[in-house]
Amino acid sequence: MTNNTILIIGAGLSGSLLALRLAKKGYNIEVRESRKDLRIADISAGKSINLAFSDRGIKALTSAGIIDKVMPICIPMKGRLIHDIKGNTFFSAYSGRGDKHINSISRGDLNAILMDEAEKYPNLKILFENECKKVNLKKNIAHFYNHKTNKKEQVKARIIFGADGAGSALRKSMFKQREVLFSFSQQWLKHGYKELSFPAAKNGGFLTEKNALHIWPRGTYMLIALPNLDGSFTVTLFLPHNDGKYSFKSLNTTKKITNFFKEQFPDALELMPNLITEFQENPVGNLGTIKCSPYTYKGKTLLIGDAAHAVVPFYGQGMNASFEDVTVLFKYIDLYPDNWKKIFSEYEKERKKDTDAIGDLAVENFYEMRDHVANPLFKIKRELERKLEQKYPDTYFSKYSMVTFNDSIPYSQAMIKGNAQDKAFLNLIEDKKIDESTEISKLLEKINSETQRIIADDKTAHLQ
Amino acid sequence: MTNNTILIIGAGLSGSLLALRLAKKGYNIEVRESRKDLRIADISAGKSINLAFSDRGIKALTSAGIIDKVMPICIPMKGRLIHDIKGNTFFSAYSGRGDKHINSISRGDLNAILMDEAEKYPNLKILFENECKKVNLKKNIAHFYNHKTNKKEQVKARIIFGADGAGSALRKSMFKQREVLFSFSQQWLKHGYKELSFPAAKNGGFLTEKNALHIWPRGTYMLIALPNLDGSFTVTLFLPHNDGKYSFKSLNTTKKITNFFKEQFPDALELMPNLITEFQENPVGNLGTIKCSPYTYKGKTLLIGDAAHAVVPFYGQGMNASFEDVTVLFKYIDLYPDNWKKIFSEYEKERKKDTDAIGDLAVENFYEMRDHVANPLFKIKRELERKLEQKYPDTYFSKYSMVTFNDSIPYSQAMIKGNAQDKAFLNLIEDKKIDESTEISKLLEKINSETQRIIADDKTAHLQ
Repeated sequence: MTNNTILIIGAGLSGSLLALRLAKKGYNIEVRESRKDLRIADISAGKSINLAFSDRGIKALTSAGIIDKVMPICIPMKGRLIHDIKGNTFFSAYSGRGDKHINSISRGDLNAILMDEAEKYPNLKILFENECKKVNLKKNIAHFYNHKTNKKEQVKARIIFGADGAGSALRKSMFKQREVLFSFSQQWLKHGYKELSFPAAKNGGFLTEKNALHIWPRGTYMLIALPNLDGSFTVTLFLPHNDGKYSFKSLNTTKKITNFFKEQFPDALELMPNLITEFQENPVGNLGTIKCSPYTYKGKTLLIGDAAHAVVPFYGQGMNASFEDVTVLFKYIDLYPDNWKKIFSEYEKERKKDTDAIGDLAVENFYEMRDHVANPLFKIKRELERKLEQKYPDTYFSKYSMVTFNDSIPYSQAMIKGNAQDKAFLNLIEDKKIDESTEISKLLEKINSETQRIIADDKTAHLQ
Repeated sequence: MTNNTILIIGAGLSGSLLALRLAKKGYNIEVRESRKDLRIADISAGKSINLAFSDRGIKALTSAGIIDKVMPICIPMKGRLIHDIKGNTFFSAYSGRGDKHINSISRGDLNAILMDEAEKYPNLKILFENECKKVNLKKNIAHFYNHKTNKKEQVKARIIFGADGAGSALRKSMFKQREVLFSFSQQWLKHGYKELSFPAAKNGGFLTEKNALHIWPRGTYMLIALPNLDGSFTVTLFLPHNDGKYSFKSLNTTKKITNFFKEQFPDALELMPNLITEFQENPVGNLGTIKCSPYTYKGKTLLIGDAAHAVVPFYGQGMNASFEDVTVLFKYIDLYPDNWKKIFSEYEKERKKDTDAIGDLAVENFYEMRDHVANPLFKIKRELERKLEQKYPDTYFSKYSMVTFNDSIPYSQAMIKGNAQDKAFLNLIEDKKIDESTEISKLLEKINSETQRIIADDKTAHLQ
């Protein structure tokens, strides 16, 4: 490669999208990916098979000009279908607006489209089985191990992007080499996850409702299911690693596994002929949040996507946030052509607070989802919010709507306003100042004024 | 050493105190310290020379039976003496109570006392120049490099304590070996610090007020001075590493240094004959907060003091928090004799939230100290709080008083109540519901009820 080439470490979702957009701009792009080409080999092990794809992601792929290739592989999910312990279901729309939905999409299929589209540019190439071991920051040289040739390779590039995911080699190099004061945080939940499945119906159809995200919330554990194009569902169990009556540690016999599902998820169990095999063979994944700063080393490298900000999956925003990184980055690439130092510093100045926010929102939502089950205030709140969104589709937005369906509101603002709004709801309900009988325009007025008061009070107290 | 010995890595402040108390209990204790014996060699380089010693620290040394050895080397500081840009001073007592103060103490002298007292126990020994390189967690073996013999040594122990400071080898081993899901965070401020000094007067007295902590607050930078027993003051400059008009990077000529002090700290400059030499020779230190979890690996190791929770110095609580670790630990050592797994898990369950809180409080105070200068609400608040503490010495406590003078209130509770109280003050002042003319009992009532409301609202919103 020439010394003027841009190197992207990682051909995952954000690496491929970034590569495509940079190639479109005319840059010479080399992408090096540690794994085999997923269009040829099955490399799904341990990775989430399907993901929630929503407005921020759609906007990014629209800007890249490839949204038409992607929409056909989407399955709309219009809301949560909540399954209680007796197998009764209750549908909760994602917003009071009828037209809003998120999409279930296969990570592998989407990644394949992104790579196919990227490779259409002659000034872009993707090399597989090239594992980045470290990046020498001072020399701007990336060190790879080529698993095909079993040889080490060094790559010097003008600009190096670390799109190499939560275990990013570039990020680890920034941590270890101590060339900058590198702030870093990794926070693990005490819960892990395991992927299971519902098979397709014999006719290729779906064994349960197709256009919903299914949830079996049970307090300290939870099962979810997302539809796949082939009629199957990917089912994910979230459960403590070690603590409590039921944990991945304690469910260590076929009998205990079966009894647990029989007791907690009876209607799901009926759709899981392969439960025991899958449970025993599939790995337990960890759930972590990663934050760091700076994202750049002196304008020569940039961390992007999960490499910069891995988040837990409870807001369905991981992939969307990574795609939005590319949207924000290109705003500055267009503003300051070729001035990478300026591009990267302006990018981080805008983006860091938003990626921090989605990391926090996702963890908060994990706890909130558990509380939703037991807390009567949450139930009233959800019903009142649904009414407000239905009546005022253009002016009232729940926190979930702001995060998921309003890509013009940055995550950090959605968090501040959304949390204040939630706090207003819960306290006004508890103080009996609003309830199901409150006249709707009165309700909106009370929520809005209380939300504004909360935000203003926090500001005065320098909490924002 | 026998296999029943307890190994403590680090003979700093918390390591020495922990060693002493465990030896007193009858355990065989071996302490290995990476540096030379500070009672013989000068090893102060880069370390803060004097520290603020207050109630939580005093309680811990009282429990250890050595407070009488320590009080004679303390210099009481009754409040902040604030120096404005013209050299005018303004005294702000630490509490409205006349009798409350914190103490300036030499880190080295205090450490020497702790080691002297510890070494009185025949079942305790301290080995110097033994640098811990890593701890093999699964085998419970600590690897040392002996700088006297230039040889590697391995130490297997029943229990290994990591009291090896912010750069802890034990903590790094927990991070790297991935035997547990290790949550970890290091956060750097964009400010650094440099230590300077005022010499003693020729007669051995003090060139400025002895019994105060001197502060020259200037918004984005700040100078402080603490008295030493020999009549000198240790002066610390806090300044951005790189950003803004004045930074450690920009002050790169004698002229710029002198002009900066002349303009910003004219009265201090008069007391600094060695400013230029000190400024050019002394290193710039970094200001970081470290948090982690778990503190223990399976009940066989424990991180304690800065190794578990390094904090920035802006609350004067770093040493006091580390000493309080020992107080809390011994509560459980007494409750569950020799059941180290239980001791360590109960200790962490209680302690983690409090050490997290003091880390956050210290960073918040950094920003608050900068705001104090410019913000009129803060000035009114400070005056009103002083009045309340004077009038109600047994019932009203500012956040600073709760943290500093109330060792019965855990840091986490002091933070929740103190932040709510501060928020109440600032908002009631801004909303013109209280001011200097408010009758004092009315003031107390308003602050208390508003504080309670804020805490209750946060609780309902699940923010606590």
